[in-house]
Amino acid sequence: MRTIDWVQNPDGPPAISMIDQTKLPGALELLTITDADELIGAIQRLSVRGAPALGVAGAMGVALVAATLPADDARAAAARIRQARPTAVNLAVGVDRALAAFEQSGPDGALTAALALRDEEVASSIAMSALGADLVRELTGKDQITMMTICNTGGLAAVEVGTALGVIGKLHADGNLRKAIPLETRPLLQGARLTAWELQNMGADFELIIDSAAALVLATGEVDAIVVGADRIAANGDTANKIGTFSLAVNAQYAGVPFIVVAPETTVDLSTASGADIEIEDRGPDEVGGFGGVRTAPAGIAGRNPAFDVTPASLITAIVTERRVVRPGASDTVMADEFAQTAATSTGGAA
Amino acid sequence: MRTIDWVQNPDGPPAISMIDQTKLPGALELLTITDADELIGAIQRLSVRGAPALGVAGAMGVALVAATLPADDARAAAARIRQARPTAVNLAVGVDRALAAFEQSGPDGALTAALALRDEEVASSIAMSALGADLVRELTGKDQITMMTICNTGGLAAVEVGTALGVIGKLHADGNLRKAIPLETRPLLQGARLTAWELQNMGADFELIIDSAAALVLATGEVDAIVVGADRIAANGDTANKIGTFSLAVNAQYAGVPFIVVAPETTVDLSTASGADIEIEDRGPDEVGGFGGVRTAPAGIAGRNPAFDVTPASLITAIVTERRVVRPGASDTVMADEFAQTAATSTGGAA
Repeated sequence: MRTIDWVQNPDGPPAISMIDQTKLPGALELLTITDADELIGAIQRLSVRGAPALGVAGAMGVALVAATLPADDARAAAARIRQARPTAVNLAVGVDRALAAFEQSGPDGALTAALALRDEEVASSIAMSALGADLVRELTGKDQITMMTICNTGGLAAVEVGTALGVIGKLHADGNLRKAIPLETRPLLQGARLTAWELQNMGADFELIIDSAAALVLATGEVDAIVVGADRIAANGDTANKIGTFSLAVNAQYAGVPFIVVAPETTVDLSTASGADIEIEDRGPDEVGGFGGVRTAPAGIAGRNPAFDVTPASLITAIVTERRVVRPGASDTVMADEFAQTAATSTGGAA
Repeated sequence: MRTIDWVQNPDGPPAISMIDQTKLPGALELLTITDADELIGAIQRLSVRGAPALGVAGAMGVALVAATLPADDARAAAARIRQARPTAVNLAVGVDRALAAFEQSGPDGALTAALALRDEEVASSIAMSALGADLVRELTGKDQITMMTICNTGGLAAVEVGTALGVIGKLHADGNLRKAIPLETRPLLQGARLTAWELQNMGADFELIIDSAAALVLATGEVDAIVVGADRIAANGDTANKIGTFSLAVNAQYAGVPFIVVAPETTVDLSTASGADIEIEDRGPDEVGGFGGVRTAPAGIAGRNPAFDVTPASLITAIVTERRVVRPGASDTVMADEFAQTAATSTGGAA
């Protein structure tokens, strides 16, 4: 089942269908999105999340408003969709790509662009999972490999297959996964809710841990490599991803465990020079003061709730995309050159 | 109000009174403990927790069974209390101290020892809070200081005042606290539930964060020092404390922020050579898969749930006790010598 897809009703307006990820793992429910407000709501409450999936949601959102609204209203709605979440570059990239096609070729052009992005993300997931699995085997030199990861970067975060969890899935499919150790990923527990669900579905051996137990588990020496996704990769290789990724990278360096970012090239944002230029969404104190709908902290207290953090390129062993493996750290220029080359040869996603 | 105290009923058996910390911050309820099984249950579900408070609970538990049971039954009950939680050395130290007094002077001796330990822990809290606050002012050279901490190490973890949170309270009382940043402390959220409650009660400015946001907040440069408690300090300075402390120490080193352990000398265990010899309690997967009765992860999955981790002495800027400030890192011998001296001059707690 695809996380997000287009529904072309033969005798009615089109729609976007998506798995409602806020209901997992308790229930597998589909949302049917028919206008921009429904889509923005779904994005903001994280019914759909994950950088590649957000890109497809943005593009399909443009196709949806283009098919159902006058052109100027569609442009205004597209601008609102583009702003629904600020940190993940893919949402804006997906909107921009479909909007450019709309301006050239009208609603049909927007839909063609959205469906092409969807198909490209699936192909990218498959390609980067294979490249990432090869890299992990090469770095570890092992046949039975234990992998740690944070957040959810599986099929639910993409359209199918996934990015970092796609690598773990490929290792499992190849018979090389000894165990996966997903972090629960406070505050919204995408690791406990979504990654555990996907690992269970694929039949992999895994052990869930709380985020702050990673240091202890890494110190045992049993983890061979860490894979994480990305919401935005700056030109110098600094990577914005789910809050907790930076802490995990610091701990990986301390333990001497390879730390690998896996993301499609649509996540690379050359217009962002470094991590210092990435806007970090704060989702307000309520998510910090509660857990699964239960209030745990005293009422009315202050809390800081950054949804993302930025891992400096110096802590990243490698960035794996659908096309290449980049090893940051030699110099900032090396990274910029790699991704400049990516942009020059891209079919349209990276800029 | 004291976290734990002795109740000498004039016309009935004695009891231990304690705040039921599992009910905070929603309700402030007192438990009345009248036998060993009730005490063991309260310790294991964390109605009473925190190294100094556990020491007093252990000693008062011996006084309770000594006053209410035949001598051999009291000894057997004391042995069971001693094993209720394995990582915190204070519980065993408190039991041993009251039991030795019992063997010398009977039930009255056990009670005298338990009350003396209670009073010593209060005096220790006051002394180490003052020493710790002085050290923080010295290390930071600042008048307005932002402090980060994990778990709960306040009056609730001791008898009154507390250890690491006692230092923050002293800075606040002295007008030197700009802000406290407590970590929520998964899985049982002692930071969100108990430390936030204590900070609110003392009128301090604070912001609650999730554990894995510490790296980002430390990277902003706004945190001047980190204070944490301890459940067991090995002879070489390695420190067992709440899970997440090790990760925080690694992140503190990366950010260049002083990392200070604050604990009474009863927490020092010279019979434990290093952190490798400390038994780490695993509390089972249920706490990882949910909170407060709300299940978030899929049912039946595997989880690892170490309740503590060990921070190597090399990551610790200073260990503050009620008597001295020790700076580990020069050599393991320096640490062992410091604590050997402590043991030699102690009134009875450290060995």
